[in-house]
Amino acid sequence: MKASTLDMLRSELGAIVHTEDELLDARRHDYWAVSHLRDWRGAAPSRPGCVVQPSSVSDVQRTIRLANRDGIAVMPFGLGSGVCGGILPDDDVLLLDLSRLNRTREIDEVNLLASFDAGKNGLEAEHEVAAVGLTIGHWPQSIALSSVGGWISTRASGQFSTAYGNIEDIVYSIEAVLPNGELVQLGKAPRAAAGPDLRHVLMGAEGTLGVVTGVTLSLRRAPEERRFSAFYADSMRSGIEAQRRIVHADWRPPVMRQYDHPEVKRNFRDHVDGDSALLLMVHEGPRGRVAAELDDVGRIAVESGLRAANPVVCEEWMDRRNHVPTWRDFFEMGIVVDTIEISAPWSRIDAVYDDAIDSLRSIDGVVNASAHSSHAYRSGINLYFSFAARRDADQLEAAYFECWNAVMTATVRNGGGVAHHHGAGRLRKPWIESDLGSTGVELLRTLKSAIDPNGIMNPGNLIPD
Amino acid sequence: MKASTLDMLRSELGAIVHTEDELLDARRHDYWAVSHLRDWRGAAPSRPGCVVQPSSVSDVQRTIRLANRDGIAVMPFGLGSGVCGGILPDDDVLLLDLSRLNRTREIDEVNLLASFDAGKNGLEAEHEVAAVGLTIGHWPQSIALSSVGGWISTRASGQFSTAYGNIEDIVYSIEAVLPNGELVQLGKAPRAAAGPDLRHVLMGAEGTLGVVTGVTLSLRRAPEERRFSAFYADSMRSGIEAQRRIVHADWRPPVMRQYDHPEVKRNFRDHVDGDSALLLMVHEGPRGRVAAELDDVGRIAVESGLRAANPVVCEEWMDRRNHVPTWRDFFEMGIVVDTIEISAPWSRIDAVYDDAIDSLRSIDGVVNASAHSSHAYRSGINLYFSFAARRDADQLEAAYFECWNAVMTATVRNGGGVAHHHGAGRLRKPWIESDLGSTGVELLRTLKSAIDPNGIMNPGNLIPD
Repeated sequence: MKASTLDMLRSELGAIVHTEDELLDARRHDYWAVSHLRDWRGAAPSRPGCVVQPSSVSDVQRTIRLANRDGIAVMPFGLGSGVCGGILPDDDVLLLDLSRLNRTREIDEVNLLASFDAGKNGLEAEHEVAAVGLTIGHWPQSIALSSVGGWISTRASGQFSTAYGNIEDIVYSIEAVLPNGELVQLGKAPRAAAGPDLRHVLMGAEGTLGVVTGVTLSLRRAPEERRFSAFYADSMRSGIEAQRRIVHADWRPPVMRQYDHPEVKRNFRDHVDGDSALLLMVHEGPRGRVAAELDDVGRIAVESGLRAANPVVCEEWMDRRNHVPTWRDFFEMGIVVDTIEISAPWSRIDAVYDDAIDSLRSIDGVVNASAHSSHAYRSGINLYFSFAARRDADQLEAAYFECWNAVMTATVRNGGGVAHHHGAGRLRKPWIESDLGSTGVELLRTLKSAIDPNGIMNPGNLIPD
Repeated sequence: MKASTLDMLRSELGAIVHTEDELLDARRHDYWAVSHLRDWRGAAPSRPGCVVQPSSVSDVQRTIRLANRDGIAVMPFGLGSGVCGGILPDDDVLLLDLSRLNRTREIDEVNLLASFDAGKNGLEAEHEVAAVGLTIGHWPQSIALSSVGGWISTRASGQFSTAYGNIEDIVYSIEAVLPNGELVQLGKAPRAAAGPDLRHVLMGAEGTLGVVTGVTLSLRRAPEERRFSAFYADSMRSGIEAQRRIVHADWRPPVMRQYDHPEVKRNFRDHVDGDSALLLMVHEGPRGRVAAELDDVGRIAVESGLRAANPVVCEEWMDRRNHVPTWRDFFEMGIVVDTIEISAPWSRIDAVYDDAIDSLRSIDGVVNASAHSSHAYRSGINLYFSFAARRDADQLEAAYFECWNAVMTATVRNGGGVAHHHGAGRLRKPWIESDLGSTGVELLRTLKSAIDPNGIMNPGNLIPD
């Protein structure tokens, strides 16, 4: 960043502008495996030109206005848990670090609403509402590492989504600063038919259309009852068919997760049964409904050919579910790993699974190719692929992109959607057109040009060039 | 419309361009009460310059490309059931009548998806999916008069929304022609985090951002069981509090409707109990869940001070629920009537109700001011006000706008959202800013200018000038 630009920012914004080495280093990327791999291999570090740490919404407005006036690239940063390369600053970039904009604004127990600054840590937010008997009901695996504003910007999903919905079903209103520095408050009422729902312009924009500064979430009361169930399926296919029947019978257990056999062996070694897949469910809600759900879902599972497993496996999953390994542990073993989530209609998901797994296994060095499902809908289901590839250190990045290419290509080839819930970032950008079509991409570009005419917001992210 | 423009359209588009008097007359407005009042009073009819009736998506594209090239105003028209003045053409307008674009494209029983042309009649669509054991689950009162594309364009709600959601929860994908003539297919997967959800750009745009040409809906299997319950409440307030507790206990009966005492007298005369309000519920789903719901909801209602009513009243409502009176019947009696739906958080809805009813009653000639609720959310609830005002014929229109102004002002003053589900049209345009804020309106204008730079799409509708 030019010294004159830094001088201007310091002069206009004062002490919220930082250039200390330690902070610049800490903000040079998010949790994308490739960024960590490059670090580990000692690639020359690319760092932001400065880090601005606003502690108020007006700080954000002042920062954005200056950036817009002078054409400075801005990269909004929540708590850095993104895994798709949404944050990849270079020296020309002003990294807008929202981690100090982290107050709880209000918890409203009458309307079950809670308002937070965007930088609020997700797990802290959940703990605060839990203290008064409420729950956000949004449990991304990253909950302890991610911000409520990041949930909005990336269109996050949580582990309890099958009943409680994804972030778009939980958000009530969004406060954001647009690239022109104006503050918008999108969403006012329980429901509205007052033009397009403008919350969706910011939701999923991954910092390319503005900066989310505040979020109001629509909460739930903590459930009266929680029960578990688990079933073995002879194949992923038969388990997915059981899930389809359960959802189509209008049951929505908050958690429905189905692991293929390699993942059962890896994650639930005490519960391996032949080469079966394993379906876990968590049932929550009013006691009578949970009892009815357990009965009916169990009946449907058995009628679909599944066999009961020990439900204690669900409790084991609950205990360990948010353990996230560090990439570096794998690099040290000569392995690169990642996860790739996609979704597809029920009729296409088996083909996506088979094709993606086969494609991964054909890649040189792949030592694991597996998947589980974790979010079910009336129209279809997601899959969350995991891969591990062992190669020489200088070939790990190539292996990584070969694996991604394999799963993306298999998904597109079989009619799936390329991104279920991690967002797109720079990683999925080449495949966005498969979801949106060329005219959809053009519409997205039209929005971008109109809302951010100077192109200051996270340039290079998400939107195909 | 200039003769040269008409000649050009006829020459380029051929027989789909119509100027027959009967058709121009039939397409001169939608179902807005004021348009009907002006007709009844013999105001000089304003008619579209021509009616174009496409029978294919490419017809729509050709039409829009010509309109965009020559700056011709286009007003998309579904089946004309709108009640907010979304359709108000004059001689310069090309009215794009989608009623012949009405095929069923596919009913997919595996993924529970059904695709229709935008002009498909809603009730016909429901009957076709019902024939294979499915339901759209979307029951606007206008279902027999409205199109599936109209549901999208106006962000419609149905009577079973409390469990099954509003149209945004039912839509899977939207096909639309943008003002530049390009065709977009928005929505591909069961769920996506691939940038902003662009379906929401078209949903609720009321013809101002493009033309919806096709819709794919996410269906349900017909429920196993349907049961009814009904309760008296001493006041609207106590009944609404019971509804809040029911929803916050995580019960979502598909239908929850609560009528104030004047509406009980008017609509359910065999079920009047003192001056009580009346809460009706329809419970649907798997048999065991319906039984649990009846038990628990009944317990919560009684604990909230409600008294059981005869559930047969729900069946009476089911039978008569889609009877829509003709405005003219009332005009002939010297009365103008209308309905106004709004929503508000639970903590504000009582104040909105009291203030709106008081405000209506203070208006000269008002002979009815009443309301019922019909859609409940975790965060709040809607109200559907009805008014009737008796005045001399030349004062009925003034009375109409005084009543609307009273309810809109009371809603805004008490923190509600001005539009729950009928859309905004030209009628609510003056109050849109209360929902979106001035910067939100500016954002909407930015989208409009970017997507429709020549301003051809339904000019004057929805977006404040």
